[in-house]
Amino acid sequence: MSEPLEAWSATWRPALEGLLRARVRDAWPPAFAEPLAYPLFTGGKRIRPALCVAAWQALANDPGRLELVLPAAVAVELIHTYSLVHDDLPSMDDDDERRGRPTVHVAFDAATAVLVGDALLTEAFAVLAEGPWAHGVRANLVSSLSRSAGFRGMVGGQAADIGLGGPIADVDVLTRLHRQKTGALIGWATVAGGLVAGADADQQQILAVYGDNLGLAFQLADDLLDAEEDAGEDGPPSFVTLLGPEETSQRARALAETAAQVVSELPRPGALVALARFAVDRDR
Amino acid sequence: MSEPLEAWSATWRPALEGLLRARVRDAWPPAFAEPLAYPLFTGGKRIRPALCVAAWQALANDPGRLELVLPAAVAVELIHTYSLVHDDLPSMDDDDERRGRPTVHVAFDAATAVLVGDALLTEAFAVLAEGPWAHGVRANLVSSLSRSAGFRGMVGGQAADIGLGGPIADVDVLTRLHRQKTGALIGWATVAGGLVAGADADQQQILAVYGDNLGLAFQLADDLLDAEEDAGEDGPPSFVTLLGPEETSQRARALAETAAQVVSELPRPGALVALARFAVDRDR
Repeated sequence: MSEPLEAWSATWRPALEGLLRARVRDAWPPAFAEPLAYPLFTGGKRIRPALCVAAWQALANDPGRLELVLPAAVAVELIHTYSLVHDDLPSMDDDDERRGRPTVHVAFDAATAVLVGDALLTEAFAVLAEGPWAHGVRANLVSSLSRSAGFRGMVGGQAADIGLGGPIADVDVLTRLHRQKTGALIGWATVAGGLVAGADADQQQILAVYGDNLGLAFQLADDLLDAEEDAGEDGPPSFVTLLGPEETSQRARALAETAAQVVSELPRPGALVALARFAVDRDR
Repeated sequence: MSEPLEAWSATWRPALEGLLRARVRDAWPPAFAEPLAYPLFTGGKRIRPALCVAAWQALANDPGRLELVLPAAVAVELIHTYSLVHDDLPSMDDDDERRGRPTVHVAFDAATAVLVGDALLTEAFAVLAEGPWAHGVRANLVSSLSRSAGFRGMVGGQAADIGLGGPIADVDVLTRLHRQKTGALIGWATVAGGLVAGADADQQQILAVYGDNLGLAFQLADDLLDAEEDAGEDGPPSFVTLLGPEETSQRARALAETAAQVVSELPRPGALVALARFAVDRDR
């Protein structure tokens, strides 16, 4: 991250990580606590929590009261983490390493990885249902996260990714796949941050457009980074293979610029704008 | 089931199954809808929905208004079904058949089975958050289901079952394992049915005791049926191997009798009593 983003991140990240750690402590059997915590603390950038906090700070009357937004950030990080644990499974992407560390099914075993994913996914909804908000807000957050993370959103995108919808033949299908697989959860994080800050309908719409553009920009930038790393290898269809690197890069920048523009009329858009620029200017 | 229980079940089961079917219809990619629905319609007895409806009818002012309880019954059946799909995976119990049909990973593949389980689990919380109840009741149901189904409940019991807590050496550890693995969800179904019927604190306590006793009785009866089927084979420790068949049978009957007794003071305990007797007198 850029230095200002790193400095901003340091204002909320320790509190987020304290909440995550506290949340998975009281498992039975006690030996389950270790594999449960393992994938949550791997030096990830916490992009989804960052979006949630940034959207909150863009709108909240009292942007310093982080305890009012962090439970939503915890929930989205639990969902994101479970999806990585299950994605890495031998029957899925079969990845042995993530951020230089053995994945959960390598460090423990595949059965444990299935259960860790199930447990983190399940816990996200308790966090929201018990959050420091009016009951109506809690119900809204649970319902919208379930729809964004489930078969109408992220899991549907993963199902398309493993080929359940047939081959990925064109940019429209690939776009739909990524809107669900990564965009839905990024969008939820952003809109949820606004929702707990009391966003009105117009502001929620702005945040939804921001999230939609940012999610896709993020994926295009990821495809560019993958193409650099895997130069010459045959891979699954990506925006780079379908559009070429220049067109992909141009579209990513345009999407990020649109995202940054659309939030500029919110009271304090600084972090959201910085995150939009970061999405297309990072090295991972 | 006994004839009266079958007849009673026919009064709500078609409506439950209609709701389940409607809930998993609008997947993208559309081809995901088939594996999503596959494990939900296998001729199961719908024990957890039955407990939910029975607890509702024991207390509700208008026990015929099934639309006020069925969403809770749908949610618990989604959770139960996801847990079977993941339990059957090659890396877990590696079961090829369930109720005489190929399991999801055999009928489709293991990656699809992982995603189907994740999707059904996720959907359960949208069902509750969007249910026909006050927002406070919805939040309470989401929080309690998450705690009953996650690492503090069912998934924790499964983690113990795959050996994460060490060997199952005695009846106390085995009892704790099953209280979590099967008892927690059975207990939730029962208490949730009462909660949406407006149970007061005493009545909720009665339903919790009923659920706790019934869940364990159910597991003891299951172990007895397994022991008959697998006579002579070496299996994992069970109540039958630790206590012997006679003591197991006696304890199961005593627990079911306690469950039936404790609900006898509720306004309409008929179905709960019949289900308690059925739990220990069934052939599966």
